[in-house]
Amino acid sequence: MRIAIAQLNYHIGNFEGNLQKMLAAVADAKAQSADIIVFGELATCGYPPRDFLEFEDFINKCEATVEALAEAAQDIAIVVGSPSKNPVIEGKDLFNSAIFLADGKVLHRAHKALLPTYDIFDEYRYFEPADEFKVVEYKGYKIALTVCEDIWNIGNENPLYTVCPLDELMPQKPDFVLNLSASPFSFEHAQARIHVLKANVDRYGLPMFYVNHSGAQTEIIFDGGSLVMSPNGNVYDELPYFEEQVKVYDLEAVQAGSQSFEQPKEKMQLIHDAIVTGIRDYFGKLGFKSAILGLSGGIDSAVTAALACRALGKENVLCVLMPSKFSSDHSVNDAEQLAINFGMPYKIIPIKETYDAFINTLTPHFEGRPFNVTEENLQARSRGVILMALSNKFGNILLNTSNKSEMAVGYGTLYGDMCGGLSVIGDVYKTDVFRLAEYINKDGEMIPVNTITKPPSAELRPNQKDSDSLPSYDDLDEVLFQYIEKRQGPKEIIAMGFDPALVNRVLRLVNINEFKRYQTAPVLRVSSKSFGVGRRMPIVGKYLS
Amino acid sequence: MRIAIAQLNYHIGNFEGNLQKMLAAVADAKAQSADIIVFGELATCGYPPRDFLEFEDFINKCEATVEALAEAAQDIAIVVGSPSKNPVIEGKDLFNSAIFLADGKVLHRAHKALLPTYDIFDEYRYFEPADEFKVVEYKGYKIALTVCEDIWNIGNENPLYTVCPLDELMPQKPDFVLNLSASPFSFEHAQARIHVLKANVDRYGLPMFYVNHSGAQTEIIFDGGSLVMSPNGNVYDELPYFEEQVKVYDLEAVQAGSQSFEQPKEKMQLIHDAIVTGIRDYFGKLGFKSAILGLSGGIDSAVTAALACRALGKENVLCVLMPSKFSSDHSVNDAEQLAINFGMPYKIIPIKETYDAFINTLTPHFEGRPFNVTEENLQARSRGVILMALSNKFGNILLNTSNKSEMAVGYGTLYGDMCGGLSVIGDVYKTDVFRLAEYINKDGEMIPVNTITKPPSAELRPNQKDSDSLPSYDDLDEVLFQYIEKRQGPKEIIAMGFDPALVNRVLRLVNINEFKRYQTAPVLRVSSKSFGVGRRMPIVGKYLS
Repeated sequence: MRIAIAQLNYHIGNFEGNLQKMLAAVADAKAQSADIIVFGELATCGYPPRDFLEFEDFINKCEATVEALAEAAQDIAIVVGSPSKNPVIEGKDLFNSAIFLADGKVLHRAHKALLPTYDIFDEYRYFEPADEFKVVEYKGYKIALTVCEDIWNIGNENPLYTVCPLDELMPQKPDFVLNLSASPFSFEHAQARIHVLKANVDRYGLPMFYVNHSGAQTEIIFDGGSLVMSPNGNVYDELPYFEEQVKVYDLEAVQAGSQSFEQPKEKMQLIHDAIVTGIRDYFGKLGFKSAILGLSGGIDSAVTAALACRALGKENVLCVLMPSKFSSDHSVNDAEQLAINFGMPYKIIPIKETYDAFINTLTPHFEGRPFNVTEENLQARSRGVILMALSNKFGNILLNTSNKSEMAVGYGTLYGDMCGGLSVIGDVYKTDVFRLAEYINKDGEMIPVNTITKPPSAELRPNQKDSDSLPSYDDLDEVLFQYIEKRQGPKEIIAMGFDPALVNRVLRLVNINEFKRYQTAPVLRVSSKSFGVGRRMPIVGKYLS
Repeated sequence: MRIAIAQLNYHIGNFEGNLQKMLAAVADAKAQSADIIVFGELATCGYPPRDFLEFEDFINKCEATVEALAEAAQDIAIVVGSPSKNPVIEGKDLFNSAIFLADGKVLHRAHKALLPTYDIFDEYRYFEPADEFKVVEYKGYKIALTVCEDIWNIGNENPLYTVCPLDELMPQKPDFVLNLSASPFSFEHAQARIHVLKANVDRYGLPMFYVNHSGAQTEIIFDGGSLVMSPNGNVYDELPYFEEQVKVYDLEAVQAGSQSFEQPKEKMQLIHDAIVTGIRDYFGKLGFKSAILGLSGGIDSAVTAALACRALGKENVLCVLMPSKFSSDHSVNDAEQLAINFGMPYKIIPIKETYDAFINTLTPHFEGRPFNVTEENLQARSRGVILMALSNKFGNILLNTSNKSEMAVGYGTLYGDMCGGLSVIGDVYKTDVFRLAEYINKDGEMIPVNTITKPPSAELRPNQKDSDSLPSYDDLDEVLFQYIEKRQGPKEIIAMGFDPALVNRVLRLVNINEFKRYQTAPVLRVSSKSFGVGRRMPIVGKYLS
C-alpha cells in the first residue's frame, strides 16, 4: 500500500484553480504508483471559506469539484476535504467531511466531529458535528478518516471536547489513520503538532498520515509541515514548511518506523518565511504585483520593506521617504541607504507643504488650543494620504508597518501610519522586530545597523522618543505577551513581579484602543494570538479600562 | 405568585454599574410585592462579553456579582444570567447559566443548551451546552428556566439544533417558563420573537416570561420588548422598545390570559429609535458627549446629523461643511440650512488649500498620468484629515455617514469619507435612507426637501452623479438585499428577473470590496444581516469576483 500526501496551496473559492492543482497531484501520485492520495481539509474550496459556506451556490461548486475528482479516481483512491450537505433538517446544514473517492465514485464520507470554535476558528458556525464513526475499507485495509481537530482532544491538559473520534473508531480495528488538516502556522505550532501526533500514536499504536495546507489566505498562513508518524512514535517524515509538495510513502516502511526526519525549527526563520509567504500570497491571490510603503528610517518600516522585497522582488516595492521638520538627518539617510542596499525604487516627498496647508486651514478653527497630539497626527495623516494617492495612481497595495507592541497600546495614528491593505509585522512584538532585523542581516548589513541600534522614535515632535511615553519594550512586550497570548489577568501578571502601576496602565491602554484595531488592516498571523479575527473584544466595554 | 421582569440596559464589564442597577430593580420589585425578579442573559457582565470570557479574572468578577445578588435575595427570589465554571475538565470551561437565587444563596443553575453560533453570535466559542435539564422548585411552583436560544428551535422550518430543552423539561411538569434573553434588534425581530413565543406556548401550554436587554453595546442594539405570554396564545404584555422597565405580573392573571397588549411596530420608527439608542449608548458608555461629522448637503450626512442630534442634543453635534471646486452652491446652502434647522453648530472649511497642496506635492511623482479616482480620493481624504484633526483637538467622536448600499459596492474612499468611530446608517440601504429622512421630517421640514429630492452625487468631479457609475438604487438595493440578507446566489437572483449582467456586476463589487469594509467602523445593526462582526467574508477569495 503506497500512500501519497499532497500538501498544496489552495485559494478560497477558486474552484477551477484548486481542482487543476489537485488533478496534477493525482497524476503525479499515479506516476509514482500510489494507491491513495490524500488532500487537505476543505481542499475543494480552500480554508477558511467563512460565510461563503452559507451560499448554496458555493456548496454546489464544492460538490462539483468532488464529482470531477471522483471521475479521476481510477486506479487510485482520492481522499479530499469538502463540505457535505446534512440530509437531516434538524441541526446545521453542513458537515465538514473527508470524502473517500474510488472507482469513479464516492465510497465514503467521514464527517468531522470536533469543530474548532475559538481563536480564528468558527466551525460550529457552519457545521454539524459527526455522530457516527465508520472506517472505510479499501484494498483490504481498514482506514480511519479524521479531519484536523478530530485528533486534537488528546495530549493536552484541558481537552475542549467530550469525545475522541478515534476512540469511537478503534473497535473497528483500523490499520492506519489519515488526517486531513488546515492547521494555521504560529511560530510554536510545528512543535505542538508533533506533540499531538505523538500522543495519538502512543494511544492508538497506528501509523498516521497528517496532511496540511501550505500558503496563506489573507491573514492566515499555512506552513505545511505535513507529518508521517510511525507507530513507534518516530516522526517518519515531515514535509517542508511554506512549500507545496506531493510525496509517496510505503505503508509497510512507515509501519516499521525505521526512519526519522524533522524539519529545522528556528523561531526567526519561521516568522520570516511565514511573513514572506503571507505577503506573496496576499498579492498573488488578489492579482497584484507591487507594493508601496513609507520608509521612516526606523526599524519597523525597514523590516517590512525587507520582507516585501523577498516576497515580491525588489523592483516591485516602492519606498517613499516623507521627511518633516522633526525628521532627523540620520532618518532620511538610513531610509535611503536601506532602499539602496536592497535595490528598491524610492521617492523623497517632503510633507511640509501639505502639513502647512492643514495648519493654515485649521488654525482659525482650533480656537487657540495648544500643539498636541492633533498636530502629530496631521503629520502621520499627511503621509497616509500621500501613500494612498500613489497607491491609487499606480495600482499597488500600501503595506502597513505597525508592530504588535504599538498596535496593542494604540501608539499609532488611525488613517495615518495605520493605513495599509495588509499589516506585515502587526503580530511581531517590537523586541522580536529587532531579532527579525538581525536575522535579515545574518549574511551582511542589508538593514543599516544605525536603524537597529538607535532609540525608537516616531519623530512627530522635537527630540521625541518612544521611551518618553511608553515603558521599555522589554517590559512592555512581556506584559503584553502574558495578557494577549496567555490570557493572564492583572493579578497574575503582577504576581510575576511587574510593577502594578505599569501592568494596570498597559492593560488599560490595550483595552481602550480596541477601536483603533477594529479599523486596522488584516494582520499576518505568526503567533498563537494575533490581533484581528482571532481576538474578539468589545469596543464599548468597561473592563480594566 | 407575582413575577417581576427587569428589562435593563447593561454595560459590558461594568460590574459595579450592572450590580447597582439590578439591586435598585430588586428593591423596586420588592416594593411591589414580587416573589421573583428575572434579569436578562449574562446580565452580570453584559452581552456580548466576547473574549473577556477567556479571562479568569473576568469570570470571578461575574461570580462576585452573583454572590452580591444572592445576599439581596431575601424575601424575593432573583433569577440572573451569568457564566458558570464547568467543573468537568473535558469540554469548554464555561456554561451560560440562568442562576436562581433565594434565601441568600444559589438554589439552582440551569445552563443554556442551544448555543447560537451564527451571524453576530459566537457562543460555542466559550460555552459548553447543557446536558441535563431540571426544573427549580420555589414556593410550591415548578419553574422551567431557559436562556434565550433555548426556546428558538421551535417555530421555524430549519431548526439549527437536534434537541429542544423544554421537551426535556416537560416530563417534570413545570408551571411556567422563564426565559432570560439577550436578543438583538433588527427591524423585523419583534415580530419574529412573538412568532417563536407563540409557537412555544402552542406546544407546551405554559405561561412564559421572556426578559430581554435594552440599550446598545457598540454595534449591537437591544430593543427590549420583553414579553409575557398567556397559555391561550395571547401576548399578555409587551414592554416598550429601547427603554428600561421593571414590571410585575400576577401569574394567575397571566395564566387566565384575559388581557392582550402589543407595542406598535413601524419599520422607520423602529430603525430611527434603534439608531438613536445606538449613538447615545456608544457615546455614553465610552464617556464621550459630543460628535463631529462632515455635512455634504446630501441625504446621508443629513440623516446622520439628524439622528445624532436626537441622541446627543443639538449643541453636541458639530457639523463641518468642506466645499471643493466641484461642490455645487445648493450643496453648501442645503447643508447650512440643515444645521440651522436643527440648531447645530457648524463650520465652513474649504478644502482648496489642502487639496492643492497634495496636488502640488504629488504631481511631480504622478509621471503624467491622467486625472482619475486618485484625485477624487484626495478630496475625500483631505476632508477626512480635517475632521479627524478637529476630533482630536476638541475630543469628540467622528461619525461615519456611509449608507449600506455604498458600503456594499465600495462606493466610498477608505480613510476619506469612510473615516469615523461609528457608522450610523451603514446598515440602512439608500432607498431606506430616503424613507428615514421622510420619517424625520414627519412633523415639518427639518431636513431640507432639496436634500431629499435632488439626484445623489459624490461631487468629486464636474456634474458627477451616483447614477453615472451605479445602477438605480431601487434595483441595486433589491439585488443587495437578496444577496446580503437572504444569501441568494447569482442564479436565484437572476431567476427573480434581474438583468444577469447587473447581478454579476453587483455581486462582484460586493465581494471585491471586502477589504474596505474590513477597515470600517462598527456599524449600528438594524437589519438581520449587517456588515461587521455578523458577516464574515474572506478578503483573499475568488468567488463571484
